[in-house]
Amino acid sequence: MGQTRKPSDVKLAQLSRRSVLQVGVGAAALLPGAARGDDLVPEAMRVPGAPATPYGSPSRFEAETVRQLTPLSSVSPGTGSARTPLHLLDGIITPSGLHYERHHNGVPDIDPARHILLVHGLVRNPLEFSVEALLRYPRMSRLAFLECAGNSGANAADEPPQTSADLIHGLVSCSEWTGVPVRLLLDEAGIADGAQWLLAEGGDASALSRSIPLSAAYEHGILALYQNGERLRPEQGYPVRLFMPGWEGSLNVKWLRRIKLVRAPVFTKEETSKYTQLQPDGVARQFDFVMGVKSVILSPSLGMRLPEPGYYEISGLAWSGHGRIAEVRVSADGGRSWTQAQLQGPILPQCLVRFRLGWRWNGEPVILQSAATDEAGHTQPTRMAWKAQYAPGQGYHYNAIQSWQVEAGGEVRNVHV
Amino acid sequence: MGQTRKPSDVKLAQLSRRSVLQVGVGAAALLPGAARGDDLVPEAMRVPGAPATPYGSPSRFEAETVRQLTPLSSVSPGTGSARTPLHLLDGIITPSGLHYERHHNGVPDIDPARHILLVHGLVRNPLEFSVEALLRYPRMSRLAFLECAGNSGANAADEPPQTSADLIHGLVSCSEWTGVPVRLLLDEAGIADGAQWLLAEGGDASALSRSIPLSAAYEHGILALYQNGERLRPEQGYPVRLFMPGWEGSLNVKWLRRIKLVRAPVFTKEETSKYTQLQPDGVARQFDFVMGVKSVILSPSLGMRLPEPGYYEISGLAWSGHGRIAEVRVSADGGRSWTQAQLQGPILPQCLVRFRLGWRWNGEPVILQSAATDEAGHTQPTRMAWKAQYAPGQGYHYNAIQSWQVEAGGEVRNVHV
Repeated sequence: MGQTRKPSDVKLAQLSRRSVLQVGVGAAALLPGAARGDDLVPEAMRVPGAPATPYGSPSRFEAETVRQLTPLSSVSPGTGSARTPLHLLDGIITPSGLHYERHHNGVPDIDPARHILLVHGLVRNPLEFSVEALLRYPRMSRLAFLECAGNSGANAADEPPQTSADLIHGLVSCSEWTGVPVRLLLDEAGIADGAQWLLAEGGDASALSRSIPLSAAYEHGILALYQNGERLRPEQGYPVRLFMPGWEGSLNVKWLRRIKLVRAPVFTKEETSKYTQLQPDGVARQFDFVMGVKSVILSPSLGMRLPEPGYYEISGLAWSGHGRIAEVRVSADGGRSWTQAQLQGPILPQCLVRFRLGWRWNGEPVILQSAATDEAGHTQPTRMAWKAQYAPGQGYHYNAIQSWQVEAGGEVRNVHV
Repeated sequence: MGQTRKPSDVKLAQLSRRSVLQVGVGAAALLPGAARGDDLVPEAMRVPGAPATPYGSPSRFEAETVRQLTPLSSVSPGTGSARTPLHLLDGIITPSGLHYERHHNGVPDIDPARHILLVHGLVRNPLEFSVEALLRYPRMSRLAFLECAGNSGANAADEPPQTSADLIHGLVSCSEWTGVPVRLLLDEAGIADGAQWLLAEGGDASALSRSIPLSAAYEHGILALYQNGERLRPEQGYPVRLFMPGWEGSLNVKWLRRIKLVRAPVFTKEETSKYTQLQPDGVARQFDFVMGVKSVILSPSLGMRLPEPGYYEISGLAWSGHGRIAEVRVSADGGRSWTQAQLQGPILPQCLVRFRLGWRWNGEPVILQSAATDEAGHTQPTRMAWKAQYAPGQGYHYNAIQSWQVEAGGEVRNVHV
């Protein structure tokens, strides 16, 4: 019936203002006037379809689009991570079922009717809030990313990991978070003299706790009750989590049960044994809250194979805890020359941004890189510049430029340059 | 341990710049210095939690947050609707599992490896595209609502339906849609002389078909492959649907198998027997594509009960197919006086906008209403003004002001005013 044309025979008038390349991507041409008989009516049109359902699921043909589980303990199966399959997604929203997970002793099963949030310490009126009470407060929404401090740290190793992008960078996700501004509860409890920090404690079996400057929590903190429209998922802190836009993931305490106002950092386990970065001089950076500017090309990325020379859209994500993304530059020659990628709006502070750039691969080996700059002027460092900041073996807050090598055969490898 | 205070004893410094009302919403005060012993450590903290999962689900305590099914045929169970539980959600994103459904003969089960999109008719080169080929084209994303032309039509009846808001207004949802601009395929096929419209046909058992002006499809149309980050759900047209931002739902043809360029509208079943509006003079409005400006208060709404006089946040959604929402006004006295609600950013064209307004209920019966205006200057009509446009019994494109009566006991009823 049809005749498959070589991609180079197919022309797209204009790809984008930035590209005048001709594009061919494998459409098949019908012979003009070719008959299309009943045999072309697909089977699915010959039988009534399935009824609507109360709560939908992905297609059975997308069963590989799942979180990759990376448990950290055979004794405690709830300790570890599950990573967002960034390389299989497009746009900026992460479906809640695919939002990354990082738990320190598993996901508690909490009945919201029995959950209490306590606000105490250096307050004039210690208060406790049921979830029902929290739901009566004014709410606000933010489209924002959430990223684990350990995300991308695998690239700090001497040998570049030859794993798909999710296993390197998949501890970042993006949702619409909706909840009660922290300041409303703090105002109601009344901040007492001397309170400078707060301790946020989760109601999980690790009682995960972090110290947070009070002023930042007052200004930016949200007691998140909803994610992507619906109530939080259990693995995201149901019924309530702290959300600090742009700050490292573990501060966004899930299953929040307690906010205690204190004079100084508490130096919990999670800010002494973890979530600090040792510097070359042996002094550790601590309370390094804001996630730095970062970007990663996801298409193409490791595990994909370019089937032939020709047109491809380079596509990826950029984000910064410091604010909005201002620019993403892409190099297809290992960093010698750079081109601005197109940023897909809306460009929101502390939110993922999708970047795209048309590209014609000539079939020769190339190194693809992206480098993001945020509105505060931060730019991604090279890997060597990033490494120079820390002692060997450190991996938190890794935000160096990712380099993907496209081999002559179209395979993609992770390389350090 | 604690002492429950009357809400009126609890004060919030300031609700918003627009409200100086004191707010009390039922927090319980601890007696200062009260001991909190081990008995207060919740059970969930005493046992390790559950491990991470490949694809998450809502909490078992949120089992009522589902789509309400309203089948239209006992013979064909796949014919009918499933409605988004708008009154149980917050923010603007609809989780894909809760996006509304409207099928004319059920959801086909399509293997993407066997699906073909045909572009033919008045084109220079008829083309067919596999899904794999479509996935190699440049893509774009839009956060946008999708609304069935029949949404809210239940309010056109003489007796106001006493059903929850989803059963009246739940045929609207909002997602991030990502796909290939229609223009790229049309340019590749080459638009032939005389082509003014296109026919879009779905690959379902109803072969749902609509005629669309070619210029609009060229300028705004997207061949959507992704919804909220992941590939389309089966009930949203997997593997590919047409997406026309702001245009009535049935034009956004699911399971798209064919685009045929034609000289004039085809007058398919779905644009003759349905999706037209009879006017008082007996002439039907046809090809009324753009969904009008609309808003609805979702909290409070029918099925909720205000437990006591005091502070409440009025919250709802507004949208317009004509562009951005410019303003939402709220009345708590049946339309005699109006106050501007706060609009939650980002305010995007053809996208849901969340509005919020603090409100103190004095315990007396009141009628709550919202009225949205879009950037093109369209404002929601009253119900009587809307009705005057059409013959009796019409319900498509219903966008009149919704009126909720709060009774003295706190119950909420649907009323026509």
